[in-house]
Amino acid sequence: MCGIFGIANHSDASRMAHLGLYALQHRGQESTGISSSDGDQVFTHKSMGYVADVFSEDVLKRLKGRNAIGHTRYSTAGDSSEGNAQPIVVKSIRNYGTVALVHNGNLINAFSLRERLERQGAIFQSTSDSEVILHLLARSEADNLLDALAETLAQVQGAFCLLLLTQDSLIAVRDPNGFRPLNLGKVDGSYVLASETCAFDLIGATYIREVEPGEIVLMRGDDLQSVKALHAPRLAKCIFEHVYFSRPDSVVFGRTVQTSRDLMGHILAQESPVDADLVVPIPDSGVAAAIGYSQESRIPFAFGLIRNHYVGRTFIEPKTKIRHFGVKVKLNPVKELLTGKRVVLIDDSIVRGTTSRKIVKMVRAAGAKEVHVRISCPPTLSPCFYGIDTPTKKELIASSHTVEEIAKYIEADSLAYLSLPGLIRAVAGKGSEFCTACYTGQYPIDFVDMTADDKAEDRQLDLWEASLKET
Amino acid sequence: MCGIFGIANHSDASRMAHLGLYALQHRGQESTGISSSDGDQVFTHKSMGYVADVFSEDVLKRLKGRNAIGHTRYSTAGDSSEGNAQPIVVKSIRNYGTVALVHNGNLINAFSLRERLERQGAIFQSTSDSEVILHLLARSEADNLLDALAETLAQVQGAFCLLLLTQDSLIAVRDPNGFRPLNLGKVDGSYVLASETCAFDLIGATYIREVEPGEIVLMRGDDLQSVKALHAPRLAKCIFEHVYFSRPDSVVFGRTVQTSRDLMGHILAQESPVDADLVVPIPDSGVAAAIGYSQESRIPFAFGLIRNHYVGRTFIEPKTKIRHFGVKVKLNPVKELLTGKRVVLIDDSIVRGTTSRKIVKMVRAAGAKEVHVRISCPPTLSPCFYGIDTPTKKELIASSHTVEEIAKYIEADSLAYLSLPGLIRAVAGKGSEFCTACYTGQYPIDFVDMTADDKAEDRQLDLWEASLKET
Amino acid sequence: MCGIFGIANHSDASRMAHLGLYALQHRGQESTGISSSDGDQVFTHKSMGYVADVFSEDVLKRLKGRNAIGHTRYSTAGDSSEGNAQPIVVKSIRNYGTVALVHNGNLINAFSLRERLERQGAIFQSTSDSEVILHLLARSEADNLLDALAETLAQVQGAFCLLLLTQDSLIAVRDPNGFRPLNLGKVDGSYVLASETCAFDLIGATYIREVEPGEIVLMRGDDLQSVKALHAPRLAKCIFEHVYFSRPDSVVFGRTVQTSRDLMGHILAQESPVDADLVVPIPDSGVAAAIGYSQESRIPFAFGLIRNHYVGRTFIEPKTKIRHFGVKVKLNPVKELLTGKRVVLIDDSIVRGTTSRKIVKMVRAAGAKEVHVRISCPPTLSPCFYGIDTPTKKELIASSHTVEEIAKYIEADSLAYLSLPGLIRAVAGKGSEFCTACYTGQYPIDFVDMTADDKAEDRQLDLWEASLKET
Amino acid sequence: MCGIFGIANHSDASRMAHLGLYALQHRGQESTGISSSDGDQVFTHKSMGYVADVFSEDVLKRLKGRNAIGHTRYSTAGDSSEGNAQPIVVKSIRNYGTVALVHNGNLINAFSLRERLERQGAIFQSTSDSEVILHLLARSEADNLLDALAETLAQVQGAFCLLLLTQDSLIAVRDPNGFRPLNLGKVDGSYVLASETCAFDLIGATYIREVEPGEIVLMRGDDLQSVKALHAPRLAKCIFEHVYFSRPDSVVFGRTVQTSRDLMGHILAQESPVDADLVVPIPDSGVAAAIGYSQESRIPFAFGLIRNHYVGRTFIEPKTKIRHFGVKVKLNPVKELLTGKRVVLIDDSIVRGTTSRKIVKMVRAAGAKEVHVRISCPPTLSPCFYGIDTPTKKELIASSHTVEEIAKYIEADSLAYLSLPGLIRAVAGKGSEFCTACYTGQYPIDFVDMTADDKAEDRQLDLWEASLKET
Repeated sequence: MCGIFGIANHSDASRMAHLGLYALQHRGQESTGISSSDGDQVFTHKSMGYVADVFSEDVLKRLKGRNAIGHTRYSTAGDSSEGNAQPIVVKSIRNYGTVALVHNGNLINAFSLRERLERQGAIFQSTSDSEVILHLLARSEADNLLDALAETLAQVQGAFCLLLLTQDSLIAVRDPNGFRPLNLGKVDGSYVLASETCAFDLIGATYIREVEPGEIVLMRGDDLQSVKALHAPRLAKCIFEHVYFSRPDSVVFGRTVQTSRDLMGHILAQESPVDADLVVPIPDSGVAAAIGYSQESRIPFAFGLIRNHYVGRTFIEPKTKIRHFGVKVKLNPVKELLTGKRVVLIDDSIVRGTTSRKIVKMVRAAGAKEVHVRISCPPTLSPCFYGIDTPTKKELIASSHTVEEIAKYIEADSLAYLSLPGLIRAVAGKGSEFCTACYTGQYPIDFVDMTADDKAEDRQLDLWEASLKET
Repeated sequence: MCGIFGIANHSDASRMAHLGLYALQHRGQESTGISSSDGDQVFTHKSMGYVADVFSEDVLKRLKGRNAIGHTRYSTAGDSSEGNAQPIVVKSIRNYGTVALVHNGNLINAFSLRERLERQGAIFQSTSDSEVILHLLARSEADNLLDALAETLAQVQGAFCLLLLTQDSLIAVRDPNGFRPLNLGKVDGSYVLASETCAFDLIGATYIREVEPGEIVLMRGDDLQSVKALHAPRLAKCIFEHVYFSRPDSVVFGRTVQTSRDLMGHILAQESPVDADLVVPIPDSGVAAAIGYSQESRIPFAFGLIRNHYVGRTFIEPKTKIRHFGVKVKLNPVKELLTGKRVVLIDDSIVRGTTSRKIVKMVRAAGAKEVHVRISCPPTLSPCFYGIDTPTKKELIASSHTVEEIAKYIEADSLAYLSLPGLIRAVAGKGSEFCTACYTGQYPIDFVDMTADDKAEDRQLDLWEASLKET
Repeated sequence: MCGIFGIANHSDASRMAHLGLYALQHRGQESTGISSSDGDQVFTHKSMGYVADVFSEDVLKRLKGRNAIGHTRYSTAGDSSEGNAQPIVVKSIRNYGTVALVHNGNLINAFSLRERLERQGAIFQSTSDSEVILHLLARSEADNLLDALAETLAQVQGAFCLLLLTQDSLIAVRDPNGFRPLNLGKVDGSYVLASETCAFDLIGATYIREVEPGEIVLMRGDDLQSVKALHAPRLAKCIFEHVYFSRPDSVVFGRTVQTSRDLMGHILAQESPVDADLVVPIPDSGVAAAIGYSQESRIPFAFGLIRNHYVGRTFIEPKTKIRHFGVKVKLNPVKELLTGKRVVLIDDSIVRGTTSRKIVKMVRAAGAKEVHVRISCPPTLSPCFYGIDTPTKKELIASSHTVEEIAKYIEADSLAYLSLPGLIRAVAGKGSEFCTACYTGQYPIDFVDMTADDKAEDRQLDLWEASLKET
Repeated sequence: MCGIFGIANHSDASRMAHLGLYALQHRGQESTGISSSDGDQVFTHKSMGYVADVFSEDVLKRLKGRNAIGHTRYSTAGDSSEGNAQPIVVKSIRNYGTVALVHNGNLINAFSLRERLERQGAIFQSTSDSEVILHLLARSEADNLLDALAETLAQVQGAFCLLLLTQDSLIAVRDPNGFRPLNLGKVDGSYVLASETCAFDLIGATYIREVEPGEIVLMRGDDLQSVKALHAPRLAKCIFEHVYFSRPDSVVFGRTVQTSRDLMGHILAQESPVDADLVVPIPDSGVAAAIGYSQESRIPFAFGLIRNHYVGRTFIEPKTKIRHFGVKVKLNPVKELLTGKRVVLIDDSIVRGTTSRKIVKMVRAAGAKEVHVRISCPPTLSPCFYGIDTPTKKELIASSHTVEEIAKYIEADSLAYLSLPGLIRAVAGKGSEFCTACYTGQYPIDFVDMTADDKAEDRQLDLWEASLKET
């Protein structure tokens, strides 16, 4: 999970990048950074923390130049540490001079590529899979940067939306499966790029189109040059961007996220109705689907759980045991609303089941007579290897339990999930365009590093999970 | 606007205070502090910033002892500076030893009291009105702390919920008009006090009752001693706590805030219906009333404006002008939802009108065909002198403009406010119990410092506003 | 121990104050602060830490105006905490407006004055004795500030060099005994004041004269008005300023400190010669006297102990025990120089004897054949109550042991101190002008708070030490 | 200029490393860092700043394990930035796992090696020449670390004392010319390594011997294995370590530095006597030689210039011009001592001449009748390429001016330098063992990267200076 932003040939580039990242903050809160270039030097500032805290007027003043790229990071592969913050900057990478890189996604053959590179004498200063790309680029024998990039990216597999900043150009890349979103827009005559269109809205940019899967876009001055350089047998747009990850006001894969979520609620109500008094979302993720569910079912909607928005990064535990403390730090039930009511709780996923169980218990303790749980997507069976931070297969409760068993575990009076066809209907796409591996276990890319004998799915996943940890 | 919390005779006092303040963070984000006492020494830590940032394990370890009080501050009177953070601590105040004080509210005769005290040689180290109380207390000739406090508080006028920590006791006071809420609860056998009950919920405390208007409660060890020491001709509970300030999951003045807000929406829909396609709240303040309005009017509810929750304290402006930038930093319209729709925007107040005007314009630019604005309380005519941070009378658009004029200024197709009787019905009270001065200009306490000649209301207000600034 | 600096009517006042404090850093490294005034407002910045760290360009820019005072603090009375950093600033102290105060020295009747003030209802926010002065000033009934100050200072006893900054004036005061130094100079046509003339040297100011004992100097614009307002039966200039505290390049009480220290070494060599191979100073305090001793005795001088100048405020101890670790952190012997030599170690004092004992042992372990210790002043018998931070009488080894006993304890082959007449000769003064209480136990001011029965010296001291602690 | 420290198989390794670095602080104040290893993981903490500020108890607790290496840095090659702080840590460098490196010295063929490595696809994350070593190491095909290291170091030229930390071993290397010092000691049965023996003194370690030029020492557990792996035609110990850089209490190249400096003063007095009244050192660098000069010449020694030890990293300039401000921030003359005197100023070098000129003027302004300057080494003609931070040849006043011209420029009544034979006598060595390139321009290593045509010395230097800047 990460957000990336770029702007080419703008008089206020680093400030615009700052605003863009600010709008993409929900995609990663661990670290953030901006690199800018004035045609001669590349300037970089990155640090752990929020966009609003990391950048000051002074810092932005030092990020000179008309081109800039930025990143907000939530760790997937690699440790959570300052050293893995992006942009990654390398000095004099062959004849391209200094190059800065930001990456949204996750490479699935980073481990074997890194092993090969290390055998060839490459040394790594981070555990990030993104560093592999720069090593390959540095070793390319191609004549120019675009060719070198095409040659490099032909070797990597997985999800990658990239922005590269050189001393005089900005390059955008989207992997050929199109896992993650990347959009192209225009403001004040300058090209802008962002993971989500909400970044365009804030800076007053106009949305033009998506960067196409497999496309490499090179911007130098006012020029924009596009090459369809990378190819894949199928598309694999991450459906979870619509379910949870993107902001509701963003246009993602050409469709407004809010619209998808509202429809998920409507279809969920059609598929799994329940006789109840109140539809209550688990805020903030369940709100949009809950409104759809309420409208479809005509059961009144109410904010029966109030979220505390001031949650800090770490929380100081009391010495004495407090009931439901873990969830109460974020959510508090409104007793008067819930007392004596049959409640439908709406959320967008059940991962391990432990938090859902606590919330159901807390809602019941607050007086609810019945608690029915409805989830606005299918059961999460399999981990994501393309950039969403999910637990291992073993930890996913739905990988080893039926819906009935889960309902029992979380102590819900009933539990239902949106069906996969229902979900695909909600995002208004063809099923074949999307990656739904987390719901089906069918991964759109072969695990190329594996031998024939390893093909049994579970073994594969175990190996993959291990390799990600080792990296 | 401030939040206060206290706990007496608990084995984990400072950690509990930290949790309580964390739940009261919405009442003030400027500074926060805790004082604790171990029966011998008083320990204090206070700083600008959020509860989650200001306190660490290490800091809480140093805040030893079984009694603790805490404060979250949003400046009303006094500068916004480190020096005005609370608790205020004074050393060896007569024979009571060290005393720490937190204060929610605002004194209306602080200026004249301070002038008198300075004439008598008192020296002030802050500009906070709360320091006046400690000076009066230090000068009291009474034999014991309770009597001294009663004598002191008989001299001050205005809104004051106070918690005082001495080396061996904790004292809670609520002014006789009962302007601000203060609640008494119990956890693990220890008494707790908090501005709102959401602080009790987080720590698992049980709500007992309100501290009564005019009551002084003294806790020493397990003992609780209550005196009804202060008297006023009438009650004046701040109705704005239900309209905006308190958290919806809190019980305030004995009533769940969410319930009041939901009713405000219902009554508003009854009083001021409109033919429209969509009810859209201005998040977060307008959400609860919008749901009530939608349910009453059967017009569908939708989150047509998305709020960015990562807003920092200061915002770095771009050099280039961005349309609607000021509101877009916080709110982004969902174009697909709004396009072609007749929209009812719900909010809880219009102050200067400038922000409302920007939002209406932005919603229209996002495609709305009509924009109707509905406000869940009456027009704000007059400033608050009892602890809510409002602009001066001159700046309040409703003080000098009719509803029609305001509608025209904010460019709404129609504008309506909830009526005062409607509001009072929503909070389920008798009108006479509440302070509604911000809607009526009828202040429940005479401006005692004014001479007869100054009685003209406007002149009075001007003087008061000036005096607050001078302090 | 503190350093103070003031400048009146200068276009670059706060920057000059910053430089002055920087030159006075040796007088106190705990905290530092500057207040400036632009004729209307008083601006203040103070913090724990070194001058070079506490002030930045930005901070100095905010300290506007043509008058400024500053302080470097080493705690004497009062806790070591942020709250005791100076300037102390009080708002609207009667009709004088905001007043800022810095104080070098120590009041000996602060305890009883504070008790009286508290009985009258004064409240204190620090434990600093200097706050007492502002309370008295606030309570004065005098017509103007000069009279109020004279009235106030007639009540306090002890050592006090003060600088006060009001909105439009700067006032300097030196106590009538003249305990601490305070000098008047001129730079760019503006008056400057500093504890030591090394501050004048750095800013290029010319030394004019000392502020006289008992003098109050008021500067307003270009005007300087002087009053000899305070009287005392005798002078009591602190001789220890010449022995240790002042910088050698300063002129203090009208005489260059380096000259005094050199003479101390010469006279010490005349009074207490020893047959030896090497004169080795304990750096930095013993260096000047050691050079004098070497020149007089014709025994070669050598830096046989090297000082580490990078000592931090706190030191992280190793888990394993390291021999002589406590002194080695600061001092390292040069073995090749010391091996087989008869060494004369020169220092300026023996306080508890423990450090001296460690150094003597370390020098012997480094190979010295004999270690003779010579001290450039008489034995320290009694604590200082006038602003030098000394341990209690009980802790001073010379208060209860003969020179022979001390020599034995510190394991020196011989030990000798400079005689009191020798010391007085070295500072080229009349004995009667100086306070030599630390060497004689004869305090120049009566302990006024004591009753007749308490007059026995030891009892007095015990009480005083206790009172200082209680404060 | 850097200091390095290592310790193998000690129960308190990181704390010992912290103390060792603290004693080596004078060798570099820009940044510092420690890496430790517990046999499994490598832990690192590094930051800009002083040893005493960068490391806390908490930080040292996290630096677990029995092996540790540390570094204090003063930038030579490479930018002054956080990214160039050492240890440099690289992850999984072939089969050696994580490797941390610290480096004292400077490689003279780093530029051409880097160019070659970049052509081969290596990417660099810093501008430090030390990173080159790790790249070569990663590319070695040798079977084991010792062989790989020997193979690697055969390719680099220049000055390098290295410490490498792997997961289970610690390796020390000294270049075959022996430019920089590196010493081996023992404490609590564990081996320790340090640039100077003053680090051994602080931790109570015993000095064993120097690491030999060309020696690689591998420590694993209690084992120590030594290989004489690197060879050079001649020794080239940096004579400037004795003149200026090392601490006087250190044993460097087997000789106590203080002894050398004292002799420099004596021989300087023999070679260049002058009829004068006072020998005054420029503190701190000139002190040791000044004492020798005074003893030899029988002219009295005096601290006529007082140094301020509280100088911060940056200095805030006053707006008004202050005479001699640049030097006065560090040095203040004692007027009374200097007035009317013929003064011999002793220092250890004249670099650009500008500071010396200011000091001579300031001493004269303080009253000196004559100012004679004596320098305790020969004129500095040529820059150092082996790790001492010197200006370019053009900036060195002695590279283009005679002693007479320099005397005139700095306005001294006379000027004399120590002769090269005199200096070599003072360090008690054979001339052929030392690098004296800064005084002679004869560099002990050929500039291998240069073509035959470039051999003209000046051209070479220009190219080198340029290459260092480009890197």
